[in-house]
Amino acid sequence: MSLLDLFIEAGNLKRLPRTGWLLAGVPNPESVAEHGYRVALITLFLADELGENGIDVDVGRAVKIALLHDLAEARITDVPLTAQRYLNKAEAERKAAMELFAGTSKPGEYFQLWREYEDGLSREGKLVRFADKLEMLVQALEYEKAGFRNLDDFWGTLEELRESEFYGYFRDLVEELAALRGGRR
Amino acid sequence: MSLLDLFIEAGNLKRLPRTGWLLAGVPNPESVAEHGYRVALITLFLADELGENGIDVDVGRAVKIALLHDLAEARITDVPLTAQRYLNKAEAERKAAMELFAGTSKPGEYFQLWREYEDGLSREGKLVRFADKLEMLVQALEYEKAGFRNLDDFWGTLEELRESEFYGYFRDLVEELAALRGGRR
Amino acid sequence: MSLLDLFIEAGNLKRLPRTGWLLAGVPNPESVAEHGYRVALITLFLADELGENGIDVDVGRAVKIALLHDLAEARITDVPLTAQRYLNKAEAERKAAMELFAGTSKPGEYFQLWREYEDGLSREGKLVRFADKLEMLVQALEYEKAGFRNLDDFWGTLEELRESEFYGYFRDLVEELAALRGGRR
Amino acid sequence: MSLLDLFIEAGNLKRLPRTGWLLAGVPNPESVAEHGYRVALITLFLADELGENGIDVDVGRAVKIALLHDLAEARITDVPLTAQRYLNKAEAERKAAMELFAGTSKPGEYFQLWREYEDGLSREGKLVRFADKLEMLVQALEYEKAGFRNLDDFWGTLEELRESEFYGYFRDLVEELAALRGGRR
Amino acid sequence: MSLLDLFIEAGNLKRLPRTGWLLAGVPNPESVAEHGYRVALITLFLADELGENGIDVDVGRAVKIALLHDLAEARITDVPLTAQRYLNKAEAERKAAMELFAGTSKPGEYFQLWREYEDGLSREGKLVRFADKLEMLVQALEYEKAGFRNLDDFWGTLEELRESEFYGYFRDLVEELAALRGGRR
Amino acid sequence: MSLLDLFIEAGNLKRLPRTGWLLAGVPNPESVAEHGYRVALITLFLADELGENGIDVDVGRAVKIALLHDLAEARITDVPLTAQRYLNKAEAERKAAMELFAGTSKPGEYFQLWREYEDGLSREGKLVRFADKLEMLVQALEYEKAGFRNLDDFWGTLEELRESEFYGYFRDLVEELAALRGGRR
Repeated sequence: MSLLDLFIEAGNLKRLPRTGWLLAGVPNPESVAEHGYRVALITLFLADELGENGIDVDVGRAVKIALLHDLAEARITDVPLTAQRYLNKAEAERKAAMELFAGTSKPGEYFQLWREYEDGLSREGKLVRFADKLEMLVQALEYEKAGFRNLDDFWGTLEELRESEFYGYFRDLVEELAALRGGRR
Repeated sequence: MSLLDLFIEAGNLKRLPRTGWLLAGVPNPESVAEHGYRVALITLFLADELGENGIDVDVGRAVKIALLHDLAEARITDVPLTAQRYLNKAEAERKAAMELFAGTSKPGEYFQLWREYEDGLSREGKLVRFADKLEMLVQALEYEKAGFRNLDDFWGTLEELRESEFYGYFRDLVEELAALRGGRR
Repeated sequence: MSLLDLFIEAGNLKRLPRTGWLLAGVPNPESVAEHGYRVALITLFLADELGENGIDVDVGRAVKIALLHDLAEARITDVPLTAQRYLNKAEAERKAAMELFAGTSKPGEYFQLWREYEDGLSREGKLVRFADKLEMLVQALEYEKAGFRNLDDFWGTLEELRESEFYGYFRDLVEELAALRGGRR
Repeated sequence: MSLLDLFIEAGNLKRLPRTGWLLAGVPNPESVAEHGYRVALITLFLADELGENGIDVDVGRAVKIALLHDLAEARITDVPLTAQRYLNKAEAERKAAMELFAGTSKPGEYFQLWREYEDGLSREGKLVRFADKLEMLVQALEYEKAGFRNLDDFWGTLEELRESEFYGYFRDLVEELAALRGGRR
Repeated sequence: MSLLDLFIEAGNLKRLPRTGWLLAGVPNPESVAEHGYRVALITLFLADELGENGIDVDVGRAVKIALLHDLAEARITDVPLTAQRYLNKAEAERKAAMELFAGTSKPGEYFQLWREYEDGLSREGKLVRFADKLEMLVQALEYEKAGFRNLDDFWGTLEELRESEFYGYFRDLVEELAALRGGRR
Repeated sequence: MSLLDLFIEAGNLKRLPRTGWLLAGVPNPESVAEHGYRVALITLFLADELGENGIDVDVGRAVKIALLHDLAEARITDVPLTAQRYLNKAEAERKAAMELFAGTSKPGEYFQLWREYEDGLSREGKLVRFADKLEMLVQALEYEKAGFRNLDDFWGTLEELRESEFYGYFRDLVEELAALRGGRR
């Protein structure tokens, strides 16, 4: 598999809908790639903010993790919660990620970055998990603002943000989000 | 789970795209429910045709199998070929089907019908498999007629139709389809 | 007209939107085929349920009626209420159905099944009418759950379900649906 | 019916797809309103061009006819060719147009303008018919340029343009269109 | 540039979304051409209504202005409010309009009509401005009726209608619209 | 403007279509965010590949540039080529970028990164320009593979890749892409 093959396969992420929104009834919801773009962007700004607060974070590393993490979905698709009781999504993504990285110049490093997210092995990996959840809630807020309902289940994730080790640094941001949602209900 | 819950959950099939077309680049491709409708319709006409030819087929039973078979995708989604190397789709659908039927008045019978397709246990089950493949090729023809390309891989299924035990009865239909495609290439 | 021609023409049902939702402002609403799939599925479960209650229903026959009924819309389209004051939809569908069935092995039988729905000639035909209305309301509930409004007019159909001869058997289901809607308003 | 009611009802034309393209497999084809906009625009330029050639045409009148003509489809929808064998579309649109104009300040004049198109009663009415067909072919060209196929049937209309009384004035335009299409095939 | 080139370029207006709705989260919102169609239609009815009230308005001229005005967006696109602080949209549209009209038989007249809207130079130009705003609010009402939210900012335009010189003639219409919206909030 | 405001505004990039494809007739083309995701991904892999070849590239910096560059389009939209003759897109994006970064902890650094792309000030900035063009051509290939036509103009960019300072390192990749396209024509 050449790099071009990998880039072409990554194009699947533009076509694949995020199934959580799809099943909740949002017509033509965002794609995995659209989610991935903002997760990486949020990761960049949050990582720099942590650095300003004296926390040692490798910003470039964090952003790479953000970009690589959803790549396996190009083969596996965005398996929704309703399916995860029946399918071993994590194991499937792990194998697919390993094979996708095989044709690159640094398969070991990319897979290591991938695992830092999946297994929460590093501060950078954990930060991307935080950004991934935050992104989903910002999107939920936007959909609700536009008139969509049926998204209450998504907001359970707010508690996960509050219990995160990064909450102390982003309390204002998280609570501003919660307030915007509260004012909307 | 009440019957109403089951009907609501079946609504997912209207929202879930058939991922084979999606990954091939067809914008807004058919849903699983749209495919399921025509599979059932084709099954009905083919079963009656077999009956006219003196073959013993339970038409009603065949149509029920057609309707029930894709139901598990309401939870599992239409897992594409690219994912099936990594995920045990068959096992997942089996479990999901069993649970979906649990709230009905005849869980055993529905699951038996479901297995007749999945495991090719009966003539009716095999006929639905034939109809399922035929439906996919008719759709491929329609997409190609409309201008879409990149669907060559789907046409390998034509050989499977030709090797089916039902081919003798539907040779004209299958070869008319092949000819229409051939004229288009 | 060959069977293949019929299957290709049935493909129109995947492309044709249900115009009631379209005119109410639902973007990219369900297709006629998507509606037809769930009507057939609901018919199957309700017919079996009636059988369990000692009512004599030919389940296979009911399901066939469900599949055949909307077929004429492949030519006529889903003529909305706003047009029915000006057009004789029933007559048009009758003629189109007759012509569509002409190329099959059992034109008389299929047209008879079609009429059982249209004219409410049999218990099975009436059951499909019940399932057709129920399906529409389940879909209305889903759209409202997703945030769409402007669907009040559809809910008048609830009274028709309550006045049906089948209401006694499906009272719980119908009232559960009504309650879900009520809780949503 | 107030003017506001009329404007709201005209909004249906934005939601209603042109069914000819839809049935030919174009995903999300143009709406009736989109067609109507360009028909009116083409009418304006052609009418002025005729005037430059010394032909007596009431440009404003022609444009009004163009805008009013498709209005009845807000109730009737764009009934496709496949349905016109079974439905009296012309009669339905006539009645609907009459009722739609009833709440305006000049129902008689608007209906007269509507009839000038429908029945080809005036030069302006005939010019809008010419513009209507030309618009459809320009759209067909654009869809084919984008990759869509299956539109051969639409091009029969080219002969109708060539047989029109206006052909002499717009020969270059029509033949340029034909040449662009020819170069594409 | 031939007339055919102009008609083809006008086809862009069918593909270009009205960005105000897009950014507010309406999925697949109306196109510029859909908006343009109803603006022209509204202009026609309002101009005739003014005439009935003894106001001297050239109805045909008003309708032509309505059709020509958005044409420049075929090149410039519908530049949204968020961009207008950074881009000189008016100047760009002026130049593009001039170039688009260059290949027609009456470039001067068309540009003059275009300026009557843009610069509010004539009663007809001002009436189209009124119709343009009214059309947007009718669309906002329809989107809100369908369930979309986040459109409050659009309704500031209601005050502009009330301050218009035409308000006296269309008070009932405007206030009926305001009341429908009020009842919805 | 808080970070949350910035994240919400970045959501516009999911809604905004890439107008080049839109005007070429691709229905529902990719969004700016979808493009941005793959540009960043390609940048990551190419930068690492350069590093393997002994070229000194700051991979993290390159990826940050990729993510930040299109951000200004959240306000300006993807102004197409047809509009760039009339509008000063570069100047508008520069101002908007500056204002967007104003509420962050490092406005100067982000704007510097943004300029490195815009003005080609650094190797990393130039690499992102290369990745941006490559991504567009991979997308063009995918659309053509799916059946879309009318994209010839996009392929002029192939020459720009061949004239780039990075071509020597990615010759195989670029020529593989050219060959895939050639085989398709």
